[in-house]
Amino acid sequence: MSDPWQECMDLCVEVTKRAGKMIREALQKDIAVMQKSSPVDLVTETDQKVEQLIISSIKEKYPTHRYPASLGRSSASFYVILVVPEKELWSKNAIFFIGEESVAAGAPSVLTDNPTWIIDPIDGTTNFVHRFPFVSVSIGFAVKKEIEFGIVYSCIEDKMYTARKGKGAFCNGVPIKVSGQEDVTKSLVLTEMGFKKDPEHFKIMLANVKTILTIPVHGVRSPGSAAVNMCLVACGAADAYYHMGIHCWDMAGGAAVVTEAGGVIMDISGGPFDLMSRRLIVASSRAIAERIAKEVTEFSVGRDDTEG
Amino acid sequence: MSDPWQECMDLCVEVTKRAGKMIREALQKDIAVMQKSSPVDLVTETDQKVEQLIISSIKEKYPTHRYPASLGRSSASFYVILVVPEKELWSKNAIFFIGEESVAAGAPSVLTDNPTWIIDPIDGTTNFVHRFPFVSVSIGFAVKKEIEFGIVYSCIEDKMYTARKGKGAFCNGVPIKVSGQEDVTKSLVLTEMGFKKDPEHFKIMLANVKTILTIPVHGVRSPGSAAVNMCLVACGAADAYYHMGIHCWDMAGGAAVVTEAGGVIMDISGGPFDLMSRRLIVASSRAIAERIAKEVTEFSVGRDDTEG
Repeated sequence: MSDPWQECMDLCVEVTKRAGKMIREALQKDIAVMQKSSPVDLVTETDQKVEQLIISSIKEKYPTHRYPASLGRSSASFYVILVVPEKELWSKNAIFFIGEESVAAGAPSVLTDNPTWIIDPIDGTTNFVHRFPFVSVSIGFAVKKEIEFGIVYSCIEDKMYTARKGKGAFCNGVPIKVSGQEDVTKSLVLTEMGFKKDPEHFKIMLANVKTILTIPVHGVRSPGSAAVNMCLVACGAADAYYHMGIHCWDMAGGAAVVTEAGGVIMDISGGPFDLMSRRLIVASSRAIAERIAKEVTEFSVGRDDTEG
Repeated sequence: MSDPWQECMDLCVEVTKRAGKMIREALQKDIAVMQKSSPVDLVTETDQKVEQLIISSIKEKYPTHRYPASLGRSSASFYVILVVPEKELWSKNAIFFIGEESVAAGAPSVLTDNPTWIIDPIDGTTNFVHRFPFVSVSIGFAVKKEIEFGIVYSCIEDKMYTARKGKGAFCNGVPIKVSGQEDVTKSLVLTEMGFKKDPEHFKIMLANVKTILTIPVHGVRSPGSAAVNMCLVACGAADAYYHMGIHCWDMAGGAAVVTEAGGVIMDISGGPFDLMSRRLIVASSRAIAERIAKEVTEFSVGRDDTEG
């Protein structure tokens, strides 16, 4: 039987490459704009352009792939979750799902069994604003809630990470694999630190960094793009990445890449990975993932598929 | 009057490029070695090879440039401070100064008025071990305790940063400048977090990260190479970098680059920058540098030019 999704994946790689080029050009062209006026406008404009490029390319090839007519359910055989990422940074926690007729703010995203494109036009918008070199386009394609393929294009580095379920992971066409490190004391760990309004969450986040450093590990790095972080673990440049508070569109592409590279992915609790849970650990080995799960204290971040 | 140091700088760029190529090749060739056995051996071996390449190239062109015959003073008109960097990670705080006849461990490095090459063969040795993509060769050249030129070659990224005093800073030959950002709440801040044996230092280091995030800033990133961090500020990809506990050879090359790119460099206290003080703030503007100096709590890290 031929692979039913290979054609979708081929399109995805091609359109992701074009999207990344668009981001690079925006960064080069608009340096003056970013420095003088509002970087928020530039990121919004570029986000929308990239989103438009991806959606129109998919719709041109697959006219039946539709946005959910109403949020949370869809009669279409395909739907697109297309989310303006990290919008909460700029517009007070609003998450936008692009529907065929309307844009709804703040609605939850329910992942159905339908084939679903989960698209993050720009992962690492803060990095984008600053031209910090980790900015990516991330797309995952899920069927029956399982990710069939994932693409992450780290566009400033010009690294195209691709993974098809059961067929391995690649960076610019070259097979990649995790480091295989099993000793946490020899590991390089990635996480992200941001200001959190909830003082308890903020405290736990910092305490977790302290706990990880105290194991001790070789070091902690914060590159600033969830999708790139997962790919850095996938290619062995880091041994683990943990995060609470990210979204399904930050994780979908990278989850396929790290899994196909031989990595372990799990929930922060140590249980099975859940794409809608807003939290994850990825690691080069089960031993390291489980050790991090054991060390890290959880805090409540809600889910992508429930209100609030 | 012709520039007395331009020829030294030209040599420096050329040899730094070759050194970076050597590092890249070591990373590609020895992946299997690193994963299976001791990455410490590989870093030591590569460090020594790179150091040897740089020193022999300098000595070939300038036979009078000498290592200090005895540490702390030199009768030669030139001397080389050549330090195996971050050795303390691997061998219990030993810092090696390579002398003509002997290798002395733990001796302080006294910066004299003599023209001095300050060389870090591999900046970011932990990154090197993990093939995390920020690894650099950093060389500063000081005369009368002022840095005349600085070269930082981020060799995995293939970015060659160069700066000659009074003549601007460049990345791969293209002029670079800092972001010019003056509003700390719009800044991206770099720092490094590591385990510290002194519980008080560890506590202050983490409290400083919390304080900076709480300002709030756009974000905190930890790339893992001091020299690259300074260059990221120099080219506007970040707005500030602060650190306590680094060494003169981590700072010398980058200090020239960030200063010539229009950046501000100062001591963590807000006073004048001191190359031997083991601490610094660099920023896109005086306003941001001074704000960070005000927010950050100091801890004692000793100096490069005194015992202990």
